[in-house]
Amino acid sequence: MKKKEKITIHDIATEIGVTASTVSRALNNHPRISPATKKMVLEAAKAINYKPNRIAAALRHGKSKLIGIIVPTINRNFFSSIVRGIEEYANARDYKVMISQSYDDYQKEVETIDALLDARVDGIMVSLGKNTHTYAHFDAVLQKGIPLVFFDRTTDELQANQVVIDDFASAYQATRHLIEQGYRHIAHFTSHMKIKIYLERLRGYSQALADFGIPFDERLVVESNMQLDGGQESTRFLLNQGLGFDAIFSASDYAIVGALQELKKIQVKIPQEVGLIGFSNEPFTEFTEPALSTVDQKAINMGQTSAALFFEMIAGDGKPKAMVKKTLDAQLITRTSSCRIKQFQP
Amino acid sequence: MKKKEKITIHDIATEIGVTASTVSRALNNHPRISPATKKMVLEAAKAINYKPNRIAAALRHGKSKLIGIIVPTINRNFFSSIVRGIEEYANARDYKVMISQSYDDYQKEVETIDALLDARVDGIMVSLGKNTHTYAHFDAVLQKGIPLVFFDRTTDELQANQVVIDDFASAYQATRHLIEQGYRHIAHFTSHMKIKIYLERLRGYSQALADFGIPFDERLVVESNMQLDGGQESTRFLLNQGLGFDAIFSASDYAIVGALQELKKIQVKIPQEVGLIGFSNEPFTEFTEPALSTVDQKAINMGQTSAALFFEMIAGDGKPKAMVKKTLDAQLITRTSSCRIKQFQP
Repeated sequence: MKKKEKITIHDIATEIGVTASTVSRALNNHPRISPATKKMVLEAAKAINYKPNRIAAALRHGKSKLIGIIVPTINRNFFSSIVRGIEEYANARDYKVMISQSYDDYQKEVETIDALLDARVDGIMVSLGKNTHTYAHFDAVLQKGIPLVFFDRTTDELQANQVVIDDFASAYQATRHLIEQGYRHIAHFTSHMKIKIYLERLRGYSQALADFGIPFDERLVVESNMQLDGGQESTRFLLNQGLGFDAIFSASDYAIVGALQELKKIQVKIPQEVGLIGFSNEPFTEFTEPALSTVDQKAINMGQTSAALFFEMIAGDGKPKAMVKKTLDAQLITRTSSCRIKQFQP
Repeated sequence: MKKKEKITIHDIATEIGVTASTVSRALNNHPRISPATKKMVLEAAKAINYKPNRIAAALRHGKSKLIGIIVPTINRNFFSSIVRGIEEYANARDYKVMISQSYDDYQKEVETIDALLDARVDGIMVSLGKNTHTYAHFDAVLQKGIPLVFFDRTTDELQANQVVIDDFASAYQATRHLIEQGYRHIAHFTSHMKIKIYLERLRGYSQALADFGIPFDERLVVESNMQLDGGQESTRFLLNQGLGFDAIFSASDYAIVGALQELKKIQVKIPQEVGLIGFSNEPFTEFTEPALSTVDQKAINMGQTSAALFFEMIAGDGKPKAMVKKTLDAQLITRTSSCRIKQFQP
């Protein structure tokens, strides 16, 4: 394969017999350069496939064709799938994405916003870290008129676009499904972080219980870090309390795997004795024994919707439009762990 | 919380009563500015916590303190853990990382290298895409003297630093473990892509068989895409051939889960009748029933080692030193799926 040489403005200058400075000014639409020369330069640039330096161009025109994405961690199928959705949509429109992780660290989120502004990105898409409770670091983004989209972990405290799933409705469906399968003492695993997605899931769980006349028992709502070990601890806590739960709806897939492991240790039959549902449709939920029911947040769709909001914002005059909040539907995935009635009776 | 305003050179100028132009030239070490003024400007800049624009600084000095990372996909625990290792090491030294995915697409890898060069990154770390067989897109990186480190999926065709794990030794250990557990008809799942890591794993498997006097049977080496469906297909292929295998060593965790699912469908007992080992220690290998043996590639260590190579390169005169190739040890993780002898006899 022949080596690809980087084409510069000097190649264009040589090609058409003008100075590099003239080429540069023509490409930058300088008023001193005649329309005829500009046309000649642009045609030559196109003919020899000249690609201007993206960042140098960004410094002149404010267009880097780069989108910066900040997620708490890339190490979750949910977030990496959202990134994939954004990326597919953006790549098809000649934009590139760069990904950064906040690791749920507030200071790292602040610094990353600074770095993205320095890198002259054309847009920023963020899922907030769990420890982010103030939002002043986004003021510079809004003040510069750089399109800002929040997805999944969002805030209503800024005038910025948001894409969320309907956490309330998803949790309601998951809980109703357990009730329809005959479970009556349904525990709920939630985060000790009072962020909106977890509050909405708790609300959906409570509403479903209320609608089916099942009393809400706050002792069955257990807080943890929502990781594997958190799910194990919450399950041991419930068992030690002797509260006689017969199902768990967990706001996290990791925590429900922890529950599954603890219950199997003491030979509890899933789903006959205890039904389990998680949240997020992480790939491993298919691989457990039994396979785990969960809520699929359609992450790729969330990514595409977020990207579409960005392109809508830049399509007009380049300024963000009025705030838009899109709420997407999620999908309940019922697998063995929550289905003890094989056939529904009509 | 008080809103944080972006501090500019104008603030420094006001602070010490000089022009913004003087501040700018002082910060850039311009020869026309006196040492006394430079000192005053630098002290004022420090006092009011002035942070220069990272990219503008990069254009002047060639230091963006940004490292670009390219991985085939972030949606693998192995790659996201390497990124974490790089990031921890780099952050501790005041460098930031930006992550891009090639999705194993050669053209996307080429374009991402261009974008990273445009973004004036100070270093590039890459795990090659499966479809990358030519390397001219890295010439510009090497020519500019930008430190380049390959990890895991590397090439010997460029004079660039590499960090790999000892795939041969890891595969040898995994196969030897199966032999020690009494398995004699050991199949191997490998990729149809002839990239180095898979060839080394195949070589380790073959060598272990040879050393223990077990004949190599090429019909037991099955190629697939190494995904879940590939593992299912390879297993059905082996079953349909009626070759009487009693173990599978897969070069991928995803493919071994596919095998587990297929074998369980027909009530094959794991590990009593067939032993299974995967590769990568993806988190779900702990959650399957039975839990899967696998090879832990110590990804965070690989990331830290890759980052350390970068910082060694920039520590001297900023030019890459002679090529270094680091080979790291991996660790065999034995779980239920491959352990049919509970106690080893001494």
